[in-house]
Amino acid sequence: MEVEDLIRHGGVGWMGGSGAESDVVLSSRVRLARNLEDVPFPGAASDEQREHVYELVRSATQRARGLGNLQPFRLDDLPALDRQILVERHLISPQQADGGRGRGVVIRDDEAVSIMVNEEDHLRIQGFYPGLELERAFELATRFDDFLASELRYAFDGRLGYLTACPTNLGTGLRASVMVHLPALTMAEQMRRLAHGLGQVGLVVRGLYGEGSEMAGSIYQISNQLTLGPTEDEVLSHLQEVTRQVIQQERRARQAMLEQNRVALEDRVWRALGTLRYARRLSTTEALEHLSDVRLGIDLGLITGIAPTILQELLVQIRPAHLQRLTHHEMTAEERDVVRASWIRRRIARALGEQTQA
Amino acid sequence: MEVEDLIRHGGVGWMGGSGAESDVVLSSRVRLARNLEDVPFPGAASDEQREHVYELVRSATQRARGLGNLQPFRLDDLPALDRQILVERHLISPQQADGGRGRGVVIRDDEAVSIMVNEEDHLRIQGFYPGLELERAFELATRFDDFLASELRYAFDGRLGYLTACPTNLGTGLRASVMVHLPALTMAEQMRRLAHGLGQVGLVVRGLYGEGSEMAGSIYQISNQLTLGPTEDEVLSHLQEVTRQVIQQERRARQAMLEQNRVALEDRVWRALGTLRYARRLSTTEALEHLSDVRLGIDLGLITGIAPTILQELLVQIRPAHLQRLTHHEMTAEERDVVRASWIRRRIARALGEQTQA
Repeated sequence: MEVEDLIRHGGVGWMGGSGAESDVVLSSRVRLARNLEDVPFPGAASDEQREHVYELVRSATQRARGLGNLQPFRLDDLPALDRQILVERHLISPQQADGGRGRGVVIRDDEAVSIMVNEEDHLRIQGFYPGLELERAFELATRFDDFLASELRYAFDGRLGYLTACPTNLGTGLRASVMVHLPALTMAEQMRRLAHGLGQVGLVVRGLYGEGSEMAGSIYQISNQLTLGPTEDEVLSHLQEVTRQVIQQERRARQAMLEQNRVALEDRVWRALGTLRYARRLSTTEALEHLSDVRLGIDLGLITGIAPTILQELLVQIRPAHLQRLTHHEMTAEERDVVRASWIRRRIARALGEQTQA
Repeated sequence: MEVEDLIRHGGVGWMGGSGAESDVVLSSRVRLARNLEDVPFPGAASDEQREHVYELVRSATQRARGLGNLQPFRLDDLPALDRQILVERHLISPQQADGGRGRGVVIRDDEAVSIMVNEEDHLRIQGFYPGLELERAFELATRFDDFLASELRYAFDGRLGYLTACPTNLGTGLRASVMVHLPALTMAEQMRRLAHGLGQVGLVVRGLYGEGSEMAGSIYQISNQLTLGPTEDEVLSHLQEVTRQVIQQERRARQAMLEQNRVALEDRVWRALGTLRYARRLSTTEALEHLSDVRLGIDLGLITGIAPTILQELLVQIRPAHLQRLTHHEMTAEERDVVRASWIRRRIARALGEQTQA
């Protein structure tokens, strides 16, 4: 498997399905931070030590049985464009994409699992699931964690728990997050208030690609801040519980918009579809805004004949590196806007064509 | 023939064709102001005197042979909605639509001729032609003028020419105008400069429905100011000549836009089509802006499969009274915006459907 093969899948595998509460929750993710005993954290380790860690992880995953088809990538061996594609597919972090000796990632071919090696910690095991499926994402990551624990010697303290490079990950090393689509709360300008409220219960709201990333298309990530103190189960059930409240708020806001100003809402979602079908250049941000509106229209039954997952699919495909890979040559931002618009037009025409055949 | 029948035609007859220079000139119009001897001008006449004038004109047009199928309307007999429809079709002036005893209009069934009775003058004979066809429009109006002159006694002064209620119409009583579509000059913000230049050569630029009317959709009327002094031929050839210069300027501006920023232009005209195809509510002004862009796209060959005359057709059909007539009930402005969007969507879908069949 090469990075090219990932793109051929189209959308990211774990985003294509539709799990629980998928009208609001696009996906769930669990990430476990782990480090090896007797090796300095990656930031303090020598090139040789990081190479050693990568080799240990790579060879361990080669021995895995029943965990799926795993593919290791040494990031320094990948072109910058491929590294960026992995970022856009949420398989590695933007930091990890910078490369550096010993940095790597092991990816399961359905993209539901990725293990970053020598990011901030030696290991960051990520499990993904569509919809609100935190338990399942945790179980998935845990299967890999259990396997790796049997192969490697983790740095673990009986009192503190898993040791990590940054104290914010100490303890369980668990960061759980949900990717949510909140168009109605965003339109109603409730996001600032919501983010404040979530902060008070130990959760944080970020953009699509984590800390400091854009908040376009009304898509947000909500995750836990604390890793030390509560147990894994407590973290997951707390996030699950709060997410359910957010889902209810979003649904109520959608219904309120539908009841109070149905025409305005219909106009908005259909215009968005019109623009996506006809525009000859589209920035990522503008495209995301329209995709968000179209998805809202689909979720509310105003637009039919297009699968709701078109949002998740295009969310990734319209990113710069993905577009560049499609055209096989470097592009300016202006050229990308043209290719992006063209890609979206064709994709939506295909979706609507499938409808007339159905 | 009733007003209802006019609407069944769809677009205004004389707007549907495409005469000379039709990429820029939508239509040509000539209007002759005439008054009857020994009757006070309408503003000073009694109800009975105006009734008398209307009756004279009505019965004269009944005797006309070879001038087409003429239909007189007494405006006081028409519902306000029908009067407004005549305004929207440029067959009577907004002032005339206010009605009042003796006010009327005689319309030829192809709408190429309308004779307003007891507007500011006893008679205002209008001839319309698609494209830049001032001579033909003048010949058309003159045939009716000649006939009416043989039936009625015009107020005419050997030195001054035709006497009119307002001195600005004295002499020839001729007002010639062209309706032009100038999207490129408008986008390039050249219209103020152009209007100033035209003013210096005795021409005036107005909006779609004459003095003080909106200037939406980059559609303007250019007409002569002087009626006393130059002969009819001089007025017509001067307007014709200047219009040709405006056409050249507009065409150059379009080519410059196409060469300098083709992608931006394509994006603009296609987005306009997308919005017209998908919006669920559209104000007249917004619809006109998009129709103007779509028409520009058609004229430049960027959009194919839609007849250019869709602009002229919808220009009239999306007006409030026309929309109200379609739905057969009174509507608020918000309701009209919804019906307008729906009408435009269906019309464009039909145009595009015809394309796939062709």
